[in-house]
Amino acid sequence: MRRLLVTIRYDGSAYHGYQVQSNAVTVQEVFQNALEKVFNKRLDVKGCSRTDSGVHANMYCISFDTDMNIPNESVVLALNTYLPDDIAAYDCKEVSLDFHPRYSCKSKEYVYKIYNGKYRNPFYAKYALWYRWSLDAEYLNKEAQVFVGKYDYSGFCSIKSDVEDSVREIYSCKVWREDDFVYFKVCGDGFLYNMVRIMVGTLLFVNEGKIKSGELKDIILSKDRRRAGKTAPPQGLYLNKVNYYAK
Amino acid sequence: MRRLLVTIRYDGSAYHGYQVQSNAVTVQEVFQNALEKVFNKRLDVKGCSRTDSGVHANMYCISFDTDMNIPNESVVLALNTYLPDDIAAYDCKEVSLDFHPRYSCKSKEYVYKIYNGKYRNPFYAKYALWYRWSLDAEYLNKEAQVFVGKYDYSGFCSIKSDVEDSVREIYSCKVWREDDFVYFKVCGDGFLYNMVRIMVGTLLFVNEGKIKSGELKDIILSKDRRRAGKTAPPQGLYLNKVNYYAK
Repeated sequence: MRRLLVTIRYDGSAYHGYQVQSNAVTVQEVFQNALEKVFNKRLDVKGCSRTDSGVHANMYCISFDTDMNIPNESVVLALNTYLPDDIAAYDCKEVSLDFHPRYSCKSKEYVYKIYNGKYRNPFYAKYALWYRWSLDAEYLNKEAQVFVGKYDYSGFCSIKSDVEDSVREIYSCKVWREDDFVYFKVCGDGFLYNMVRIMVGTLLFVNEGKIKSGELKDIILSKDRRRAGKTAPPQGLYLNKVNYYAK
Repeated sequence: MRRLLVTIRYDGSAYHGYQVQSNAVTVQEVFQNALEKVFNKRLDVKGCSRTDSGVHANMYCISFDTDMNIPNESVVLALNTYLPDDIAAYDCKEVSLDFHPRYSCKSKEYVYKIYNGKYRNPFYAKYALWYRWSLDAEYLNKEAQVFVGKYDYSGFCSIKSDVEDSVREIYSCKVWREDDFVYFKVCGDGFLYNMVRIMVGTLLFVNEGKIKSGELKDIILSKDRRRAGKTAPPQGLYLNKVNYYAK
């Protein structure tokens, strides 16, 4: 028995997130269908994270067990012939049998992409948030640094969530501009439901002066969802990197 | 009576090109529908170029005449509320009544985008050609310089075309790499049907050694479609810029 860890990229536009749901097409289901064609058997898979409807992934890790001895490189190539255009594998390696893509994870990195052009851009409708007003990336980068640290982030969590422990450690974050795009990158030990999207919505409130300079830390400490900003839309969000403990 | 020139961007993935066809959705038809909502009247429009099914435009110019006095900026905003996500206007200005977006054009620039990563990338399935083999952009740039000049380009034209004059002048062209992407940019006084896509397909033959160093000029002069390369697929092609004589 071998445990394989496959890394994929996906354009989440057409999917209701990663995790299988009874009445909607998800990445997991489509991946399992392709995997079944490669291994001639329906395999159980474990993913590294839930992702929301419309959210993308530059790096998403999935593990499964098999007795077959297909070379790792061939698993990638075979999967790609069966996966649709909007999902593609780019790595496959063997991991130890106690490896779990979610629980063996050391940190995760998300990127949120904002298109800051004056007019709607058709090439980014599904790949960035369009924000037409002036956006001060340097100022936001300075204010955003209070996210770094270990906090009870329950004020930055969708009220639909029922997670018990809402303490998360953020290792780093950065806001920067590249031409008409502004990016928010954040790395942490884990993220609550909608947490990155609420961080972005809150930074937009900071940008608009609805949250004053220096006020963000109080808002985190208040654990009050109503004091944070709106949940930014899904299409700007990318799961960018998953870091594992040595396997 | 005023003649207005509107500039749009579009993701051509869902369209059968620009020009109206009886049995397929085109950019022109969708644009005219939005224009009709803004001006309360079906207006006749002139476009700067035909584009093929699946081809994109970073800059596409359309003119029409109107008696209404909507400010130019408002035309852009109103159009964008009626246009679908994959088409957006970003400029509108008044031009003289003898201006024609096609015939007043001094030069056009196209860009062809190639994704040169090892594996299929879901984010570029509809926005670039995926070419997985080694690609020497510097070498191609050197060889491609023979495209520059005034030639009878009938060997670089789809055999479906019935254009009489196939002499075109290419002002400049360039091949360059940016990380996993290789770009081909070409500027000329006009382009025959499929000409840029055949230029790209031919450069891929050069890359693969099917056409030897220095042989490209003979192939142009031969006017023989069979000696040029394949027609590269549409999704990598962008009409990038349209330059006009002073209006």
